[in-house]
Amino acid sequence: MTLRVGVIGTGAIGREHVRRMTQVLKGAEVVAVTDVNAAQAREVVDAFKLQAVIYENGQELIRAQDVDAVMVTSWGATHEEFVLASIAAGKPVFCEKPLAVTAEGCKAIVEAESAFGKRLVQVGYMRRYDRGYRAVKEALVNGTIGEPLILNCAHRNVSVPDFYTRDMSIVDTFIHELDVHRWLLDDDYVSVQVVQPRKSRLAGSHLQDPLLVYMETAKGVRINGEIFVNCKYGYDIQCQVVGEMGIVSLPEPMSVTMRSEAKLSTGLLTDWKERFIEAYDIELQDWIDSTLRGEMNGPSAWDGYAAAIASDACLEARDSGAIVRISMPERPSFYRHPSEDKAASGIS
Amino acid sequence: MTLRVGVIGTGAIGREHVRRMTQVLKGAEVVAVTDVNAAQAREVVDAFKLQAVIYENGQELIRAQDVDAVMVTSWGATHEEFVLASIAAGKPVFCEKPLAVTAEGCKAIVEAESAFGKRLVQVGYMRRYDRGYRAVKEALVNGTIGEPLILNCAHRNVSVPDFYTRDMSIVDTFIHELDVHRWLLDDDYVSVQVVQPRKSRLAGSHLQDPLLVYMETAKGVRINGEIFVNCKYGYDIQCQVVGEMGIVSLPEPMSVTMRSEAKLSTGLLTDWKERFIEAYDIELQDWIDSTLRGEMNGPSAWDGYAAAIASDACLEARDSGAIVRISMPERPSFYRHPSEDKAASGIS
Amino acid sequence: MTLRVGVIGTGAIGREHVRRMTQVLKGAEVVAVTDVNAAQAREVVDAFKLQAVIYENGQELIRAQDVDAVMVTSWGATHEEFVLASIAAGKPVFCEKPLAVTAEGCKAIVEAESAFGKRLVQVGYMRRYDRGYRAVKEALVNGTIGEPLILNCAHRNVSVPDFYTRDMSIVDTFIHELDVHRWLLDDDYVSVQVVQPRKSRLAGSHLQDPLLVYMETAKGVRINGEIFVNCKYGYDIQCQVVGEMGIVSLPEPMSVTMRSEAKLSTGLLTDWKERFIEAYDIELQDWIDSTLRGEMNGPSAWDGYAAAIASDACLEARDSGAIVRISMPERPSFYRHPSEDKAASGIS
Amino acid sequence: MTLRVGVIGTGAIGREHVRRMTQVLKGAEVVAVTDVNAAQAREVVDAFKLQAVIYENGQELIRAQDVDAVMVTSWGATHEEFVLASIAAGKPVFCEKPLAVTAEGCKAIVEAESAFGKRLVQVGYMRRYDRGYRAVKEALVNGTIGEPLILNCAHRNVSVPDFYTRDMSIVDTFIHELDVHRWLLDDDYVSVQVVQPRKSRLAGSHLQDPLLVYMETAKGVRINGEIFVNCKYGYDIQCQVVGEMGIVSLPEPMSVTMRSEAKLSTGLLTDWKERFIEAYDIELQDWIDSTLRGEMNGPSAWDGYAAAIASDACLEARDSGAIVRISMPERPSFYRHPSEDKAASGIS
Repeated sequence: MTLRVGVIGTGAIGREHVRRMTQVLKGAEVVAVTDVNAAQAREVVDAFKLQAVIYENGQELIRAQDVDAVMVTSWGATHEEFVLASIAAGKPVFCEKPLAVTAEGCKAIVEAESAFGKRLVQVGYMRRYDRGYRAVKEALVNGTIGEPLILNCAHRNVSVPDFYTRDMSIVDTFIHELDVHRWLLDDDYVSVQVVQPRKSRLAGSHLQDPLLVYMETAKGVRINGEIFVNCKYGYDIQCQVVGEMGIVSLPEPMSVTMRSEAKLSTGLLTDWKERFIEAYDIELQDWIDSTLRGEMNGPSAWDGYAAAIASDACLEARDSGAIVRISMPERPSFYRHPSEDKAASGIS
Repeated sequence: MTLRVGVIGTGAIGREHVRRMTQVLKGAEVVAVTDVNAAQAREVVDAFKLQAVIYENGQELIRAQDVDAVMVTSWGATHEEFVLASIAAGKPVFCEKPLAVTAEGCKAIVEAESAFGKRLVQVGYMRRYDRGYRAVKEALVNGTIGEPLILNCAHRNVSVPDFYTRDMSIVDTFIHELDVHRWLLDDDYVSVQVVQPRKSRLAGSHLQDPLLVYMETAKGVRINGEIFVNCKYGYDIQCQVVGEMGIVSLPEPMSVTMRSEAKLSTGLLTDWKERFIEAYDIELQDWIDSTLRGEMNGPSAWDGYAAAIASDACLEARDSGAIVRISMPERPSFYRHPSEDKAASGIS
Repeated sequence: MTLRVGVIGTGAIGREHVRRMTQVLKGAEVVAVTDVNAAQAREVVDAFKLQAVIYENGQELIRAQDVDAVMVTSWGATHEEFVLASIAAGKPVFCEKPLAVTAEGCKAIVEAESAFGKRLVQVGYMRRYDRGYRAVKEALVNGTIGEPLILNCAHRNVSVPDFYTRDMSIVDTFIHELDVHRWLLDDDYVSVQVVQPRKSRLAGSHLQDPLLVYMETAKGVRINGEIFVNCKYGYDIQCQVVGEMGIVSLPEPMSVTMRSEAKLSTGLLTDWKERFIEAYDIELQDWIDSTLRGEMNGPSAWDGYAAAIASDACLEARDSGAIVRISMPERPSFYRHPSEDKAASGIS
Repeated sequence: MTLRVGVIGTGAIGREHVRRMTQVLKGAEVVAVTDVNAAQAREVVDAFKLQAVIYENGQELIRAQDVDAVMVTSWGATHEEFVLASIAAGKPVFCEKPLAVTAEGCKAIVEAESAFGKRLVQVGYMRRYDRGYRAVKEALVNGTIGEPLILNCAHRNVSVPDFYTRDMSIVDTFIHELDVHRWLLDDDYVSVQVVQPRKSRLAGSHLQDPLLVYMETAKGVRINGEIFVNCKYGYDIQCQVVGEMGIVSLPEPMSVTMRSEAKLSTGLLTDWKERFIEAYDIELQDWIDSTLRGEMNGPSAWDGYAAAIASDACLEARDSGAIVRISMPERPSFYRHPSEDKAASGIS
């Protein structure tokens, strides 16, 4: 049995997911593509020798009879429309982050999916599928360190391109932490405060870099988050949970150990694409497999909504300097079915 | 295009490779199976819902029209026969180690393949596909540590089953080192000496455990090899190359870092199956892809022959206590075509 | 030449310093002791076979002709009185922390010493003499990581005794961080905020444990401090400075590396006394040597005053939940002489 | 009570020990010095402001009434004579390695000391006092890893001076391993084999570098020793003991952890003097304290004799290429008194 996928948006990540489904993963076939840039869609069809129809637009693609499931990898501002259309068509949809560019938009999707009565939406938060985060989660679930009390994290990039804006450190960068920590701690945020350390002279003048994000969860866990997108030394994702009896930290990336030039060293990554490449593979394979089984286990529309609310609060906290309360609506019972619990356990 | 594979031997590793080709990898379909235990073959067909014919024996399977390529995962003593038959049929064949149980047998295969005039045989030395070994090889090729001078290695298992014999520490365990170090160093062995340290009281009385293997290569590199199959603490594969300007060592397995109970620790594996599971995937995918392209890049019949000669020398050295010379015949130019060189570079 | 030292207070740390000066260090002789518990003073004289006069009280000891320098290791509340008396007597004085139990008391000492016109006071902040902190400081001074932007630190104890009060996590525990970070960063604090994470169930009911202290310095460096005095797993002092081009962290304690029980581990300390035992030796030897040369290089009365002001602000921040401004008076030029600059460089 | 020490030989290490006794350690006073270069002796007396008589030669110094104990730090070839004279005078003597330049010479000392009937001689093998080796020994004594089976070690220097001869890699460099491993394992050597790996192009043409030394002990432990005195990357002393249930390794040198330039690194030493500077302090302090108590705990004349026999065997093995048997005479009971056992335990 093969999942026939239609891909909306064949730019960087869309192209990469087409490659993945075509050359790496099992069980899916890309049968339809579309892109605002038709030439780009054509190029992808040719590059991967797809037997795929090129549609005028996303709406047509979603309606296509032979499209079993939709992948939304278009420009962020269009996600909401295509996800809603997929729900309306009753088709499973994998949507890259963000689910929608506003919390309101996410809420509309949550409501549409709830009304439909069955989970159809998965949001592309791939870190939940990273072996490292899974191992941290496993340690937490096993109770090895007791209850979590503090979470220290850092998201560091070597540098960022010129088009990287001030807001992107929250909405594009830290958004991954906002999702993965909710999942890791099985908890929700209640407040956030953002402070600006001394600025690095090596960061663009329009940026606040680094930035610290202090959060509190419903269970009282405190999160100390660092965003530093011009750290120069490497692409470094850190996550450490301090528990009642011990501390568990993300693995360092696999690397040979060198003794040379008076140093004992292991290598750090510099390219972010390497860090989560395997997680993307696992994520999409899991989505294909689950969808073929009629299930939906990954990050839900509710998770996308929660991330959007937290992200908005981070921006407000950054601009106001105040401690901003985060209030999530009550989680609908719809988003608590068994398959999700399984995914939450981190042990697939 | 799909490679139609016939699998001879559906026991432990055969079954695992069927799972791999069916559920994980791209481009292959298992269309034929056989096993001395017919019920076992049937079970595998059912378990993986294969559209596969069950053959009476390997010879029939090899002859089958729709079998494009053969996988030999039967009992070691039968490998030679099936590999020779595959060559006779002009079909690509992936043979789990050992290529043959005697060096003579390997030589016969080398001669048959040479006579056929095209590489058809790949031997299942999966370590060459391990990311860790590849990273060590890359450091060597890049010249980061200068020329290699000494190689220290250890192969340690938590324990071994009752059927594990005295010879198996060489022919089943250290055989992997015998292959991978030739590849890593791009070199051949010229001598071997085996010494027995004080025996562990926790090893079976019929075993010599641990065992040290001292080897010399044509380029003068000295290898200090340790085999310790009842080390109790973990499954631990170590490889360290001392070069003129530095030292490079295999990565430790990925693990969370824990601070607990007065220790700062990372986890070691205990199950050997976890250590190279990814290497098996990469190895077989590479075999499928290469075979579909009409190439053969992996460990060759010549490599299998070299390992057999070295393994025989190790046994002789162990029994005699003497330094045993290892003389490989001149490598036929047949085994030096470009694709092999590419594989040897470790950078695929 | 020998420094004749009078010791006021021969309890735990006083006794330890007497041992140090008598059995480990060079250049000092304990010629006078006193303690509120006369039997305790007698015991110390006997235990270390001192040729020392036992005085009725600190004031008499300070006045004694043959006492060249004074060591104040009595109960904290008495420090101010004895330090002031030493200054009045024109005698160098080493005072264990705190310099005085109030910032006002510290200020009085600063004023008395300034009026005297020559540095006489050293406060017992031994971390500045720890090899680890010195190495971090050296990396900062060398510019290896660019300007410091963020400092992450943790002070974790296995557990605390019953008499440990809520305030002690600031005034006894974090006080060390308050001093050493000023020195490390060569900077002053401008604000502090204290937040309480979820409480560990393994901490006494009267404690807030762990506790987070967020500070800002005049140069804009942000400090994320964790105090966790019932962390169970070890005595663990962490300090990490994030700079513009890299990160430097305190060394882990020296330990053998073990491979055992499926773990690769190094040991962590459990007893705080082991962690800084060498720093105490270096600190006191430096005090003896400097004093014999007529200099005073270590943590000054001004440093003690600064720590007291910061400590008061931490308590206020903890109780109010607010961000509390810290305003140090202008540093008198008196506290900026060359020898102090030498000490500040961390390279003796 | 002060130990009045006479120092024979005030060159590099002699001068350093004078500094140590004068400026760092407690309980000793250098009251007499001599050197073949009288100006050198005078310089040391002046540099450290010693109240010391300068003698014409070692024999006179040993006879001096006010010399309680002798330190022999002269040219190696003269050690035997001065140690024998000290024994004849009934004076405790600390002799830097080698005890004598021939095994015969060591034997003569052993016999003289035995005839005298009381231990007087300590040989300067400082590694037994290194915290790292002590921690390894402690792990062995505690049984944490079961019985030791294999010991892997390496002695690596960045480079060696021009006067460094071919033999020095054994008699000056590996001699430290020869002593410390006997102590660590509480065992004696029974055979040695030396093999020469491919030579580093960065080593002087007259040297064999690196060199491998394979040894066997009476209990069957196998030692794999590497000597590499032009390794370029650092001064690196490695020692790893493989036991029945685990592995214990020497600590790496204390260093800050850096994240910079795509590397996670700690520093390695480049200067050998830093590595054991603390061990020298502990060693000499222990010698002073023991001598004042009328005891002698450190490496004995017997240990010096054993190292000489092993060193001779290494040279023979290197030159012959054969496995050379090492036969120590039966250890006289004289060398087994309780204080030595205490020292052997590694826990002072």
